Amino acid sequence: MPSALVTLDMLPSIEVELKNAVDSSNIPALADFHNMMAYHMGWEGEGAGPGATGKRIRPLLVLLTCAAAGGQWQHALPASAAVELLHNFSLIHDDIEDNSPLRRGRSTVWVKWGIPQAINTGDAMLTLAHLTILRLADHINPIIALEAVRILQQTCLELTKGQYLDISYENRSDLALDDYWPMISGKTGALISACTHLGALTAQADRVIQAAYRMFGYNLGLAFQTLDDLLGIWGNAANTGKSAQSDLVSGKKSLPVLYGLGQNKAFAQRWREGPILPGEVESVARLLEQEGARDYTQETAACLTDKALGALEVARPTGPAGDELYTLANQLLKRQV
Amino acid sequence: MPSALVTLDMLPSIEVELKNAVDSSNIPALADFHNMMAYHMGWEGEGAGPGATGKRIRPLLVLLTCAAAGGQWQHALPASAAVELLHNFSLIHDDIEDNSPLRRGRSTVWVKWGIPQAINTGDAMLTLAHLTILRLADHINPIIALEAVRILQQTCLELTKGQYLDISYENRSDLALDDYWPMISGKTGALISACTHLGALTAQADRVIQAAYRMFGYNLGLAFQTLDDLLGIWGNAANTGKSAQSDLVSGKKSLPVLYGLGQNKAFAQRWREGPILPGEVESVARLLEQEGARDYTQETAACLTDKALGALEVARPTGPAGDELYTLANQLLKRQV
Repeated sequence: MPSALVTLDMLPSIEVELKNAVDSSNIPALADFHNMMAYHMGWEGEGAGPGATGKRIRPLLVLLTCAAAGGQWQHALPASAAVELLHNFSLIHDDIEDNSPLRRGRSTVWVKWGIPQAINTGDAMLTLAHLTILRLADHINPIIALEAVRILQQTCLELTKGQYLDISYENRSDLALDDYWPMISGKTGALISACTHLGALTAQADRVIQAAYRMFGYNLGLAFQTLDDLLGIWGNAANTGKSAQSDLVSGKKSLPVLYGLGQNKAFAQRWREGPILPGEVESVARLLEQEGARDYTQETAACLTDKALGALEVARPTGPAGDELYTLANQLLKRQV
Repeated sequence: MPSALVTLDMLPSIEVELKNAVDSSNIPALADFHNMMAYHMGWEGEGAGPGATGKRIRPLLVLLTCAAAGGQWQHALPASAAVELLHNFSLIHDDIEDNSPLRRGRSTVWVKWGIPQAINTGDAMLTLAHLTILRLADHINPIIALEAVRILQQTCLELTKGQYLDISYENRSDLALDDYWPMISGKTGALISACTHLGALTAQADRVIQAAYRMFGYNLGLAFQTLDDLLGIWGNAANTGKSAQSDLVSGKKSLPVLYGLGQNKAFAQRWREGPILPGEVESVARLLEQEGARDYTQETAACLTDKALGALEVARPTGPAGDELYTLANQLLKRQV
């Protein structure tokens, strides 16, 4: 079977698993409790549909890794749904914490239902993530299921540590490059490495192979984030037509910005004077490029990409799922600036 | 050994287990992340000390039940710390959701550190609860450990359902008695029944005994809540000297209030006209009593207390821990109005 067909086979199963988890609370007395989660997942309410669900990259990574490591991907479905629910829990709470009114072009949960219900809905989605991964024990021995639960819990703790750093950075004027990695390891690296780790674990791959897949996911996550940071300043939308979308305007503590702050030259001086305005975006981006931030970010992304693909080589993925894992990694990492 | 000594033995061990869980994040880069949790737990910051920690009733119930059901309570310590961490997660988020500035006489986490950090700290504490209960597997077979994890997760889902109802009741004018039980089963019954269930499970008691302990906890929780509701309107502080402390002023959807709303007489009419003012507390409390709410609440509490103690009889608790379980239940249930 051609590799893309593997993915086409997996996506509907992921959606069924996710709906089973969320629909477990769908009783009349709790109608809105369910609706808030179904709305956030992109299934209900205005703007529902494929554009609102996201691409389900994380659960796909779990299933492709499981299959590529010689396992039956159907057995890993509870883990794949769990990482997607965990991801969506963090989005619901991040949107409150960042005061974001929109997510994928739709009103965020807190805007529609208020902060109290949005906090509680995030809590519920986190809990569904953990309840869902327990279903691994239906097909896999309990010691491995417990190990999977532990990986998901530890990932969640790393997420909260990364988010703590991100929020705490808002009030700090002394940030530099070293502050980037602990934040982004928690916010991005932890979850993507959990995806590939859980896939290899449910395939019952040996420890060395599990570690290689985990390394692949970790570096894939960091490389992706680094490229995203690059596009957020020098991508087409950010740098030209839609300057309001630039990470420079939103004040995001991205890799180029922290590199620039660490240089402590003209960019750092301008940054500390207050928010960058849309009209300044092109000139400030040029300044940051002159100080070396663009090259540094690009080299870092290339280095992380090499590490990710190197780890994937070590893991020796097999079959059409293995091919698709390379394809997916290349798609994620070869976005052009 | 006299029964009270059992409790005295357990309390320091509970505190050590809790501190181990929270201190796992105590590194310099995450100092405030740790401090927020340690502050909320009552260990650090202004007003820290026994008055700020709470009485640790829930973890004591886990350990006493384990010992009374013939188990080694030391093996249940991870479960006891987990329920206390779960309880404290819900307090941190409830305080934001209810806009409460004070908890046990101290500023709440969101007041001291802002809503974004408080949401994230609650998430971290919830995660620590789930990571902590996994440590049961150090001493207990993995199938039982998985069952304990499942009980805690399910409890957490029930908590969020109860909290959803509580928040949604704020905007409803058609509430009646039937709306009380699903809310309070989730908010109070679920966690207390999890305590006694987890105690019996870790003691590896048979299913019938586990179910009896669970029933004991469930009815104990509901009876306690019902008595708390009674005291909130007709207790000394609420009814006389400190009328601002009355549940009538805070607008709490307590059992007497929902009973009164269901009667749809003078009390219901007054309630729907807007918030009760401190100066009206005595007269409105008298109205509610005349309409039968006080008697109804008292009878309900007595009935639930009988059910709780009846279930405890069925469970046949043994030894000094068994005696202490009766003592604790009686202390909780015999508070005078």
